[in-house]
Amino acid sequence: RYCCEKNLAVTPQGGNTGLVGGSVPIFDEIILSTALMNQIISFNKVSGILVCQAGCILEKLNEYVEEQGFIMPLDLGAKGSCHIGGNVATNAGGLRLLRYGSLRGTVLGLEVVLADGSVLDCLTSLRKDNTGYDLKQLFIGSEGTLGVITAVSILCPQKPKAVNLAFLGCQSFPKVLETFTTCRAMLGEILSAFEFMDEKCMELVEKHLKLSKPVTGSPFYVLIETSGSNSTHDEEKLNSFLEQVMASGLVTDGTVATDDKKIKAKVLGLFGFLCSLVHQALWSLRERITEALTHDGYVYKYDISLPVGKLYDLVMDMRTRLGQSAKNVVGYGHLGDGNLHLNITSESYSHSLLAAIEPFVYEWTARCNGSISAEHGLGFKKKQFIEYSKPQEAVQLMQRFKAMLDPKGILNPYKTLPPAP
Amino acid sequence: RYCCEKNLAVTPQGGNTGLVGGSVPIFDEIILSTALMNQIISFNKVSGILVCQAGCILEKLNEYVEEQGFIMPLDLGAKGSCHIGGNVATNAGGLRLLRYGSLRGTVLGLEVVLADGSVLDCLTSLRKDNTGYDLKQLFIGSEGTLGVITAVSILCPQKPKAVNLAFLGCQSFPKVLETFTTCRAMLGEILSAFEFMDEKCMELVEKHLKLSKPVTGSPFYVLIETSGSNSTHDEEKLNSFLEQVMASGLVTDGTVATDDKKIKAKVLGLFGFLCSLVHQALWSLRERITEALTHDGYVYKYDISLPVGKLYDLVMDMRTRLGQSAKNVVGYGHLGDGNLHLNITSESYSHSLLAAIEPFVYEWTARCNGSISAEHGLGFKKKQFIEYSKPQEAVQLMQRFKAMLDPKGILNPYKTLPPAP
Repeated sequence: RYCCEKNLAVTPQGGNTGLVGGSVPIFDEIILSTALMNQIISFNKVSGILVCQAGCILEKLNEYVEEQGFIMPLDLGAKGSCHIGGNVATNAGGLRLLRYGSLRGTVLGLEVVLADGSVLDCLTSLRKDNTGYDLKQLFIGSEGTLGVITAVSILCPQKPKAVNLAFLGCQSFPKVLETFTTCRAMLGEILSAFEFMDEKCMELVEKHLKLSKPVTGSPFYVLIETSGSNSTHDEEKLNSFLEQVMASGLVTDGTVATDDKKIKAKVLGLFGFLCSLVHQALWSLRERITEALTHDGYVYKYDISLPVGKLYDLVMDMRTRLGQSAKNVVGYGHLGDGNLHLNITSESYSHSLLAAIEPFVYEWTARCNGSISAEHGLGFKKKQFIEYSKPQEAVQLMQRFKAMLDPKGILNPYKTLPPAP
Repeated sequence: RYCCEKNLAVTPQGGNTGLVGGSVPIFDEIILSTALMNQIISFNKVSGILVCQAGCILEKLNEYVEEQGFIMPLDLGAKGSCHIGGNVATNAGGLRLLRYGSLRGTVLGLEVVLADGSVLDCLTSLRKDNTGYDLKQLFIGSEGTLGVITAVSILCPQKPKAVNLAFLGCQSFPKVLETFTTCRAMLGEILSAFEFMDEKCMELVEKHLKLSKPVTGSPFYVLIETSGSNSTHDEEKLNSFLEQVMASGLVTDGTVATDDKKIKAKVLGLFGFLCSLVHQALWSLRERITEALTHDGYVYKYDISLPVGKLYDLVMDMRTRLGQSAKNVVGYGHLGDGNLHLNITSESYSHSLLAAIEPFVYEWTARCNGSISAEHGLGFKKKQFIEYSKPQEAVQLMQRFKAMLDPKGILNPYKTLPPAP
């Protein structure tokens, strides 16, 4: 309210872990930090509904609900420092989306401070509520440009009793896709993650972080996680799936780890390689790719949604296009959600390299009706590219919402949307 | 566009199956029927994404995607006549919400005609897209008051290979609740429905529709459905759950049916009653309660969200309050979602009976922070009660959205929101 009266601009900031500069002030905005708003308000053990302040760290929340037999419906690499308020403001995706859906379904209520300083209390804890328009949806994913999220009510799924991992090698991307289709059919309701990464990613993780992978010699790797309520059943399902994909040649090599706290790696009939890697070690190979990239030089990062069949074509086209001018062009991501993380590295920032990448990458994506930001938002860096993914009428309507809710333009200015004409 | 120029009001109408008068014109509105917009635009067998026009009938869509190995993410009693556009416009809940979540997660894109006649094309088919505000959310559940939905893109889950049903009797509502907690823990990821109904519901279904129930002599009945990818595993899970709840006395009687097209009813060790009812017959006991009520006289219908522990207290309090002035007071609903359908019948419409029910039922719900419309919307009949579930600031903000998107007030007037002051 003070800022509104004095015409002061604010930039809400949580863990400041975003990749598009959504929580970084541009000129002289005041940083409104949620770090001290870190209290859990309530948790219902029957319904699994958690109500907490916006500044709670995702990992801490997960630890808290785990003690009561639940888990947070989202998980991402930055969990150790990102805030739940920022997760909701950016509609963060992450590793569990395939199983538990997006925050648009799991967030049940929000408390939001509007631009005029008034508090909008939509902090309900009901799974179903069809009374009027669902206002909270407008704030989910609007990156603090329409209001500042101060508290969140969220539905937590039950903690799975059994978690298994499989790390597999495939000889081609079409085989990765076929492995996914087979996997979805055979693992069904227990499939909780299907991540893929190319050989280049694994090379960088080995080179810069000294991590060793349990399977070698494949151009593509896949990390599959199952989460279920019966470990015997889950292992049986996973084993029949593995026998099938090995027998049909979709997968050439792989390792499996079950997570009963004790290390319990297994080798299946056809597996050529045994390695007693625990759960965390396998996940590190996927989760630490981002970190490995930062050691490789300047990184150009793209977070693209595409029809799943075309997911890797963009990486190959980009590699061909850039040739020797890029150090590395790598692709990985949430294959189950059609979400590619395309990363390009060079020794140092190069304007000509950037010009070779953009707008080519956006045009390529737009031609396939993809999204130029699957889960990272637009923030400051990508707002001018919104029209590659949204028609002009939609952008204009967004600008009208912004003007209505924040007429002075004091909430996270210069973010998400290009300036209205 | 024609209607906007001429200042003509329109009421969009799909299957006209709603219970709050959302699709019924009040004065001289033109009915805009979506019945002829019944074409399927595309279906992707890998991703399970269906794109279709708004007038497609839900049951027909389900049949269509079933042939390709998928199911629609929602299912409701009116499926034979309701339109997908109306389902989305009202954010319909139904029987599968417990498993597949709400339409806010499964609807991926919409095409909407705005009040000025322009078309807003947000008909994308991506699971993840964080470019700007998610405009489609505003139209989901706004009951045609902000725009007319003309096409829908929706994510369909895989068709489960095994579906099992259990119909159980419980001696008290606390035992129903404990059965639910046990069920969620033991059936976990395969649980797809947990419906409850009281003895009165079953009496009416038997009396008016001549349906016989497989289990008798309990004040409460529960219908549990599992959907999974492995029939052996699913039956094992269901059997251990049933053994547990029978042994602990939570459930006193029950019957189970598996759905392999052939009738295959089973009796478990402790079960006292055998009945070879098929899947459909068991579901009819739950789905045809609404129909049985219409045969019982004038029906006062309430669709309430409450914390699950308090769900049946409202029915008991109402029964006590109304005494002999009501013919029947019954409660049933989607227990897993905290959604109660409270229905009261009388020989004919009685103003004094209505005055005894309302606003008592809304005040009771508001005291428990519940919702006065869980899944049916507000339409014409309940718009004036919105403030029992939403703070005044939220209602005012909704009215500003309405004024911005439909300045002439021609879209489904007199619905959803009370008039702005």
